[in-house]
Amino acid sequence: MRPSSRQANQLREIRITRHYTKHAEGSVLIECGDTKVICTASVEERVPPHKKGSGEGWVTAEYGMLPRSTGSRMQREAAKGKQSGRTQEIQRLIGRSLRAVVDLKKLGERTIQIDCDVIQADGGTRTASITGAYVALQDAVSSLIEKGLLTETPVTDAIAAISVGIYQGTPVLDLDYLEDSACDTDMNVVMLGSGHFVEVQGTAEGHAFSRVEMDQLLELAQNGIVDLIKMQQAALAG
Amino acid sequence: MRPSSRQANQLREIRITRHYTKHAEGSVLIECGDTKVICTASVEERVPPHKKGSGEGWVTAEYGMLPRSTGSRMQREAAKGKQSGRTQEIQRLIGRSLRAVVDLKKLGERTIQIDCDVIQADGGTRTASITGAYVALQDAVSSLIEKGLLTETPVTDAIAAISVGIYQGTPVLDLDYLEDSACDTDMNVVMLGSGHFVEVQGTAEGHAFSRVEMDQLLELAQNGIVDLIKMQQAALAG
Amino acid sequence: MRPSSRQANQLREIRITRHYTKHAEGSVLIECGDTKVICTASVEERVPPHKKGSGEGWVTAEYGMLPRSTGSRMQREAAKGKQSGRTQEIQRLIGRSLRAVVDLKKLGERTIQIDCDVIQADGGTRTASITGAYVALQDAVSSLIEKGLLTETPVTDAIAAISVGIYQGTPVLDLDYLEDSACDTDMNVVMLGSGHFVEVQGTAEGHAFSRVEMDQLLELAQNGIVDLIKMQQAALAG
Amino acid sequence: MRPSSRQANQLREIRITRHYTKHAEGSVLIECGDTKVICTASVEERVPPHKKGSGEGWVTAEYGMLPRSTGSRMQREAAKGKQSGRTQEIQRLIGRSLRAVVDLKKLGERTIQIDCDVIQADGGTRTASITGAYVALQDAVSSLIEKGLLTETPVTDAIAAISVGIYQGTPVLDLDYLEDSACDTDMNVVMLGSGHFVEVQGTAEGHAFSRVEMDQLLELAQNGIVDLIKMQQAALAG
Amino acid sequence: MRPSSRQANQLREIRITRHYTKHAEGSVLIECGDTKVICTASVEERVPPHKKGSGEGWVTAEYGMLPRSTGSRMQREAAKGKQSGRTQEIQRLIGRSLRAVVDLKKLGERTIQIDCDVIQADGGTRTASITGAYVALQDAVSSLIEKGLLTETPVTDAIAAISVGIYQGTPVLDLDYLEDSACDTDMNVVMLGSGHFVEVQGTAEGHAFSRVEMDQLLELAQNGIVDLIKMQQAALAG
Amino acid sequence: MRPSSRQANQLREIRITRHYTKHAEGSVLIECGDTKVICTASVEERVPPHKKGSGEGWVTAEYGMLPRSTGSRMQREAAKGKQSGRTQEIQRLIGRSLRAVVDLKKLGERTIQIDCDVIQADGGTRTASITGAYVALQDAVSSLIEKGLLTETPVTDAIAAISVGIYQGTPVLDLDYLEDSACDTDMNVVMLGSGHFVEVQGTAEGHAFSRVEMDQLLELAQNGIVDLIKMQQAALAG
Repeated sequence: MRPSSRQANQLREIRITRHYTKHAEGSVLIECGDTKVICTASVEERVPPHKKGSGEGWVTAEYGMLPRSTGSRMQREAAKGKQSGRTQEIQRLIGRSLRAVVDLKKLGERTIQIDCDVIQADGGTRTASITGAYVALQDAVSSLIEKGLLTETPVTDAIAAISVGIYQGTPVLDLDYLEDSACDTDMNVVMLGSGHFVEVQGTAEGHAFSRVEMDQLLELAQNGIVDLIKMQQAALAG
Repeated sequence: MRPSSRQANQLREIRITRHYTKHAEGSVLIECGDTKVICTASVEERVPPHKKGSGEGWVTAEYGMLPRSTGSRMQREAAKGKQSGRTQEIQRLIGRSLRAVVDLKKLGERTIQIDCDVIQADGGTRTASITGAYVALQDAVSSLIEKGLLTETPVTDAIAAISVGIYQGTPVLDLDYLEDSACDTDMNVVMLGSGHFVEVQGTAEGHAFSRVEMDQLLELAQNGIVDLIKMQQAALAG
Repeated sequence: MRPSSRQANQLREIRITRHYTKHAEGSVLIECGDTKVICTASVEERVPPHKKGSGEGWVTAEYGMLPRSTGSRMQREAAKGKQSGRTQEIQRLIGRSLRAVVDLKKLGERTIQIDCDVIQADGGTRTASITGAYVALQDAVSSLIEKGLLTETPVTDAIAAISVGIYQGTPVLDLDYLEDSACDTDMNVVMLGSGHFVEVQGTAEGHAFSRVEMDQLLELAQNGIVDLIKMQQAALAG
Repeated sequence: MRPSSRQANQLREIRITRHYTKHAEGSVLIECGDTKVICTASVEERVPPHKKGSGEGWVTAEYGMLPRSTGSRMQREAAKGKQSGRTQEIQRLIGRSLRAVVDLKKLGERTIQIDCDVIQADGGTRTASITGAYVALQDAVSSLIEKGLLTETPVTDAIAAISVGIYQGTPVLDLDYLEDSACDTDMNVVMLGSGHFVEVQGTAEGHAFSRVEMDQLLELAQNGIVDLIKMQQAALAG
Repeated sequence: MRPSSRQANQLREIRITRHYTKHAEGSVLIECGDTKVICTASVEERVPPHKKGSGEGWVTAEYGMLPRSTGSRMQREAAKGKQSGRTQEIQRLIGRSLRAVVDLKKLGERTIQIDCDVIQADGGTRTASITGAYVALQDAVSSLIEKGLLTETPVTDAIAAISVGIYQGTPVLDLDYLEDSACDTDMNVVMLGSGHFVEVQGTAEGHAFSRVEMDQLLELAQNGIVDLIKMQQAALAG
Repeated sequence: MRPSSRQANQLREIRITRHYTKHAEGSVLIECGDTKVICTASVEERVPPHKKGSGEGWVTAEYGMLPRSTGSRMQREAAKGKQSGRTQEIQRLIGRSLRAVVDLKKLGERTIQIDCDVIQADGGTRTASITGAYVALQDAVSSLIEKGLLTETPVTDAIAAISVGIYQGTPVLDLDYLEDSACDTDMNVVMLGSGHFVEVQGTAEGHAFSRVEMDQLLELAQNGIVDLIKMQQAALAG
């Protein structure tokens, strides 16, 4: 029995709100149960040094948590003067994932800067960030097309992410915080609309996992992501 | 004529939403027109070194802006590795203001940590932070009383803040971003329910201001804050 | 009765020594009683990025205290690796104040960098810094005119600053450290030769202040600054 | 055809040299082809704050590269004043992996600090680090047993790691730098002597990977790690 | 011919002003020609961790330059967020030198913190700092004896320092900035009242120096320091 | 009697291994007894800002110690976020020493970056670094000549370094860690093939040293360096 009474293969309730804030070219609030992340996509007409003169653009991401997005207050990273290893790991994952669906040549020499800021955390913030950021990215690209700065979309496929894990011996989909902190194995999966994987990151927290368990987890994740991509499409069509 | 067509002495539409996020003891979304700030109050059962063994508590604040809360994206302070001078100035102001209405002896040796995070900026973020943080503080104190950790409230008065300025020669209340960036004089006023001032910070951006202008600005601010305190009380009663 | 036996409206003894050190274009030691600040103005033939190509110059300030300028030794900010919020607040105030009397177009694309370093502190270091920095600025401008780099002065008015506060219920002028650490309200006022205000920063330390008290404080400050500006003129004429 | 002419399932030549430096309780030079990493395990009779008084020990890791371990010189992280996101990601992975084979209760309240320093890089430094660090860990544990500080080993299983990837369409084992920088998918696998996984981190660099490809990669990795664990055992027996 | 027309073995004019600022237990302005350094000695009734419980005290030093103490303005180290290698080298030298004349056991578990702040630089700031700091240290020790915290002095000998160098082929004493920036060899010598050396730091800037030249430089330095120690004694007797 | 049973004027066993790692233009492992340092010289076709457009090149150095190169583990400087004063002092010394034997004009506008990384420490790491770095520098210069980027060598002389000290009253050559931590005076000497000095840095740790002792130490160092330079030449000829 899951703490939330969900079925093993059941996602939390997902809500995707576009145009959540007014300044960003793409701005999305994604809610996965009690996890809430503001994902913005900002267009900047410049590229980092390693892309200058290349004719190619860049997509990158930053991630943060409000200090009291969590059960007990975390120290503010800006006040500490550095981002934690966890934060850097997550923002590198988000950036890498989004770049997997953008043709940087077609984007041209500009940057789409993704910001994922967690305002309430209940597990799965990095996968929610990727799923929401994709929608923000699409809105930012649409704004470029509307302004005539792009004639065709550089986005090559949909992308979404979900966590899976083995909770009390059972493989389950979309871990919430209670499950996440108690589970033996935690796996984050990022997948394209095509069904191919962009990232698979499985970590044994308690005891190591077998090939059989890994296969069950991947199965769960694939089905969950197919559903998430439908929700993204619905939101973008809305 | 103000860009927003407001009267000179007219506040923007104010909305105060309590219990905005679920983890903090006090959590408020305050919206002043298009300015939106999440204010949380977190109770921590410890005090900073300078209060250890004093029998007194502490109230302190941190302030941040989401990178794309503004018209063009700001660099993330956590990524830069330091908070700007502006950020530090604002969070010191918020902390000082809130401490003005808390009897630290009655609070006992614990800290109320205020976090004000701007998710959308349109002028007046520091004054909105103070006005919202007061409501979050009250909720945090109520939770302490409910848990039996306090028997009487350490909060001694209401407090709220507003900006005023001279826009195109006319003193106006509650500057939005368009006014703020064009005005000659900008003044932030923090006032108690008693009508006494806690902070008056007037700065001439363009040309210096006279005593007469200063009096007009203080008048506007006093009336505006009286209204804000009523809205706080309504929200707390709600 | 004030600790120093001064009248309520009496300044401390002020001494302004020009050409205090030999390298800077303007170099002033200002002594306000036991508060001693070295104010230098350095001319640099470049501007910060936001002014490049604008045809305008820039005036900015930095502030520091020698570690043992105070009663008990403060940690050296260079050793800590960061400037405190207080330091940043003060240097922003000094820079903003000085810019209020400089026509940046007339200055041309160069920077006047103000450095205010407190070698002995006894209250009022930020206002002494502004008052002294104005004299150093004038000397730096004179050196530009002498060298033929400027044909007319970009300085548009005199500027000086003073603190006022309510000490044991009485509004007093020019707080020393004993008064500053015990007073209920502390207000720093920056004013032009024209009598208009550039900055008014009032903070209630102990209990909040009324409109009436505020008026008394402004009155005291205005008279004090009129005297300070006379002393600046005498020093510059000397 | 691989640049090194190796078979698809062929490891590079592995050399494990124990007692490489004289001060550390465990000190191993691991060479995987041209990749050379010094792995030391240092015993410290203290634990980090989150383990104090728990009766449990801790195992943690740090990772670094000599500036010219790589083809073109990298900036020294100590000189830059921060560790890169990549460095932090790797050292978190090494620490997590090693903890998977240590019973922290049996270790007692002491820390085993792993340091992995790359003196020459040619791909696969993070997996070589894990494989080498396990041997250093065993030597450090042996020193604790010899000194009578432990009566039984807290090490519960062997652990080793390898990278696999899809190079020019073919799944291959143990990527060197030429393959790593050209491959489409890169997967790091950490596995126990029991054959269960501790970490699986697959990333699509170029195009996404299918379930079938993932299975092939895991198969290659499993066989490779079985061989590596034999080499560790041989080194420890030698 | 030296730029200052001094003889090869002639010191600049030295002035030592005690009680230069009012807060520090020892406070000295030392002027060596146009080089001016404020040296303070602060007594703190605590010791750094490596001396806790040892029954011994500590003497340490920090060094800084006002940004415009030099011909062209230097960046403020507090604003840069780090002390330069040069600064650290100098403050380590000052601290080591002063510790050479203090019996840390007799000092007891307290720290004497030396601060040397250059307000005007014209060469030889580090040696002036040591010479001035000794006088400040003596005053701080006297204050401890006066307060009854010490019954006998922990200071075991006098100490002073001077620079020597080879300027245009000739060994000269007490380099000023013009000589220092043009000389081939620069040597800083720290010597006790007993005539023994505490530090000898010779550096060939242009071409290397012979044993004969080294002997000439040491001779000059010894004589110069004998004179400096007399001046220190005169100042302390004054 | 020295702990190592060496004669007072006897060097430790020195081994110089060229081409120690494969990427750097010069790469040397120098072993002085149990002290082992990897010295690499990297050629970079750019110069730091102060040399841009000067027609001159630059030689600079960085120094580091692996955390467990020492008897008890040191904190990793990259993790601490700053290099210690000692590290900066050493790397400045190495850079200055190497520049003493390079004609920067002949080098042309390129940088030779020296990295000295201690993998095992037993005293004398800074002098071993200089001695080894010279060999790496020569190899880097040879690679420039082989590539036709230079037609003649910019290296003007050989350079090597050694420590000497007074151990239990006797002047001895080439201190190991046991001697270094117990000796009264420690002197590092850097000398050219010509027999002239580039650096002499003598520090009294315990009691101060006389002119006579200084002469004895210099004598020992000169003879030791003559031998080291022969070993460098043998290695370069090998």
